[in-house]
Amino acid sequence: MIDKVLSYINKNSMISNGDKVVVGFSGGPDSTALLHILYRLKDELKISLYAVHVNHLIRGQEAFRDEEFSKNFCEKLNIPFYSFRIDVTKMAKEKGLSSEEAGRIARYECFNNVLKEINGNKIALAHNKNDQAETIIMKFLRGSGLKGLSGIQPVRDNIIRPLLICSREEIEYYCEHNNLQPVIDSTNKEAIYLRNKVRLELIPYIIKNINENVVDNLFKMAEILNDENEYIEKEALKYYEDIKDNGGIIVEGFKKLHVALKRRIIRQLIKDVKGDLNGIENLHVEDCLELIERNQTGKMLYLPKNLVAEISYGKFFIKRLDTKKDFEYILKIPGILRLDELNLVVKTELLKNHGNLTDTPFIKYFDYDKIKGGLVVRNRKEGDYIFPKGMKGKKKIKDLFIDKKIPRDERDSIPLVAIGKEVLWVYGIRDTKNYKIDEHTKNVLKITIERG
Amino acid sequence: MIDKVLSYINKNSMISNGDKVVVGFSGGPDSTALLHILYRLKDELKISLYAVHVNHLIRGQEAFRDEEFSKNFCEKLNIPFYSFRIDVTKMAKEKGLSSEEAGRIARYECFNNVLKEINGNKIALAHNKNDQAETIIMKFLRGSGLKGLSGIQPVRDNIIRPLLICSREEIEYYCEHNNLQPVIDSTNKEAIYLRNKVRLELIPYIIKNINENVVDNLFKMAEILNDENEYIEKEALKYYEDIKDNGGIIVEGFKKLHVALKRRIIRQLIKDVKGDLNGIENLHVEDCLELIERNQTGKMLYLPKNLVAEISYGKFFIKRLDTKKDFEYILKIPGILRLDELNLVVKTELLKNHGNLTDTPFIKYFDYDKIKGGLVVRNRKEGDYIFPKGMKGKKKIKDLFIDKKIPRDERDSIPLVAIGKEVLWVYGIRDTKNYKIDEHTKNVLKITIERG
Repeated sequence: MIDKVLSYINKNSMISNGDKVVVGFSGGPDSTALLHILYRLKDELKISLYAVHVNHLIRGQEAFRDEEFSKNFCEKLNIPFYSFRIDVTKMAKEKGLSSEEAGRIARYECFNNVLKEINGNKIALAHNKNDQAETIIMKFLRGSGLKGLSGIQPVRDNIIRPLLICSREEIEYYCEHNNLQPVIDSTNKEAIYLRNKVRLELIPYIIKNINENVVDNLFKMAEILNDENEYIEKEALKYYEDIKDNGGIIVEGFKKLHVALKRRIIRQLIKDVKGDLNGIENLHVEDCLELIERNQTGKMLYLPKNLVAEISYGKFFIKRLDTKKDFEYILKIPGILRLDELNLVVKTELLKNHGNLTDTPFIKYFDYDKIKGGLVVRNRKEGDYIFPKGMKGKKKIKDLFIDKKIPRDERDSIPLVAIGKEVLWVYGIRDTKNYKIDEHTKNVLKITIERG
Repeated sequence: MIDKVLSYINKNSMISNGDKVVVGFSGGPDSTALLHILYRLKDELKISLYAVHVNHLIRGQEAFRDEEFSKNFCEKLNIPFYSFRIDVTKMAKEKGLSSEEAGRIARYECFNNVLKEINGNKIALAHNKNDQAETIIMKFLRGSGLKGLSGIQPVRDNIIRPLLICSREEIEYYCEHNNLQPVIDSTNKEAIYLRNKVRLELIPYIIKNINENVVDNLFKMAEILNDENEYIEKEALKYYEDIKDNGGIIVEGFKKLHVALKRRIIRQLIKDVKGDLNGIENLHVEDCLELIERNQTGKMLYLPKNLVAEISYGKFFIKRLDTKKDFEYILKIPGILRLDELNLVVKTELLKNHGNLTDTPFIKYFDYDKIKGGLVVRNRKEGDYIFPKGMKGKKKIKDLFIDKKIPRDERDSIPLVAIGKEVLWVYGIRDTKNYKIDEHTKNVLKITIERG
């Protein structure tokens, strides 16, 4: 296996003479094998190694056992060992992140701290070929774009993944054969629920019934798609530079481009303004395309994360919304209300109750005769509450947002259907158990909220 | 649903006024719904319709029932009806194709015949959104490139697929609601074995456990990937035109391009010579890349389907091999033999029998003391035979090729390990049950055939 890893390192130009490499080291089989292999290669590659262990304080005693193992392992091989203890659960709560995401951020912070301290230049992580297949399958099933389908990259910035070419079995065999006795990863089960489904059920099913080489095939596919993604991205950035102008892009130049480039340029512009693309989905990009296609000065479009897209005199801009923009509209019944800035349409209709009316995420039915006051569509206000379907009693809208982990900067642009302070429907999140239709209902109010 | 289909037709510019549209009509729910919807839209779209039914003569009585239904359905709606009866099983055998593939070819022939007869210009097929998801998943699990991941195209040449936007449930509901009473497709089960696995087991598992919107998400993904594929393809063709020269490509110009373009240019060159890309896999493209990288005049590489890649004075060519090229080499034991033109290496080693020796597709073990005569590696000769593992008795190599559906033009470039006329190993296909190791074996001959 060591030859295979060495040739993969060389093929991807992962390491140069003199590199100081920080190795992420959990003590599990993957990172133990990685550290051991790099240790064996260090004279040949002329590198120095530093191991970094992060205790997430999630798994109690077991985590301390792992920390102890990692420390001893490094002592034996005389590798400088740095360990950190970070309360990832607390961090996740504070930042409104999943504990998986929080753990990832915490680890990178630790790696980068050590990198700075030792004046190092590379971070080596132990992802393997099976991780690669799982990642690609998860991205695929979510309908990800080319970048997602390219999977985990062997080299990204200063991060290298020398074991990506090795299967889990090869790594386990290596550990056994070299008597490394790694600890067994018992990862936070909830956070990796989906990955476990893919790892333990979906991939075995595919191997048995559809394609026994799926892991290898996806690995090779990812290499090719990665090249194709890189090519389009490079081209898009080139054209982006051409049509950039004072923080916006010139609509005329943009319109002449191939749609594949257009989508990527919009993403890049958003990234330049926002710093990343978290929360930005395909449909937002499509909405921007449409806005640009129409090219009417003054037209705006709210995007998630407090961003707004805007056309102004032949240029397209993405801007941060600094001031909270409240909105409130009375709902006419029947009637159609366009929330232009959210790109949503709210439609109300009156029907007779003929049974067979089932709510969907986009359509809610209410008993029209139970509704006394005036219905409005607006964003949240202090003191809003709901009697949520499927829960006991009354809940503050604020608490609902917290429970559902809706980021603070998005809460102001979520439309609510309300009567006074009582909310009937938090669009996309939850609706009330009050005012619902039953067998006595005669007149039905149907409310549809759709993009468009 | 009719509105949805109409807007999908318009969005993809599928139909123009005056089009004469040939509709593939099996009588099943999909094509019945398609024909009915187009019938209802025909005045609005100003088109004329022609239905074509192909009886594959596979399913006996049932197929005639379907033909009858289709005929009656068209009579009622006054749509010109053309039906064909084609013995697909026979055709598959004659052409060495799967019956699924043969059926597809037969249908397209019929559609095109009618198209010619009526002087029409469009062929409408009834693929739906679920077909799309299944296709994409199958391609994905095979590790397909961007084109495969783009799935079925709504428009390709003169073929249009107006129902691609509709799910199977929507179509079934449409048929029921309009009392169309289509026949139930009972397709050749063996041919669609894999698709059925994906349809009936894999997708339901994914919907239940991983992503309930997988069908929609893959549909949207395919639209975006289709654009990206189209963009790269267009760029590659542009550069291909620049570096094309007298049937070859200029190596110097080629080398400057991004690898994503290089791969596609090689594929295009092969397509120009061969007419299609059947049988050409990624590894063949990678081999060509390597050959070009080395750029040594006279270097050659055999490709499947009787093609050869060749470097000649700074140009790269793909050529058809018109004359059969025989080869035969004596195997030295132990030793290494390079079959340069097949890009294969044959390695022989002698080991003591320590048990635990298991054949793989690339490694075979034999009892060295049972082998009397001289071993050679060569291509097939008249009269070759094998005692195939897992089968009774002796088999002609010719029959083995026929059973395994190896196309005739590939048979001459498959290496065999043989003693006289007795073949021990047909590389990639089958090995002998003779000469195998058992508990009495002392000296083991290990033969490895690998790319490289």
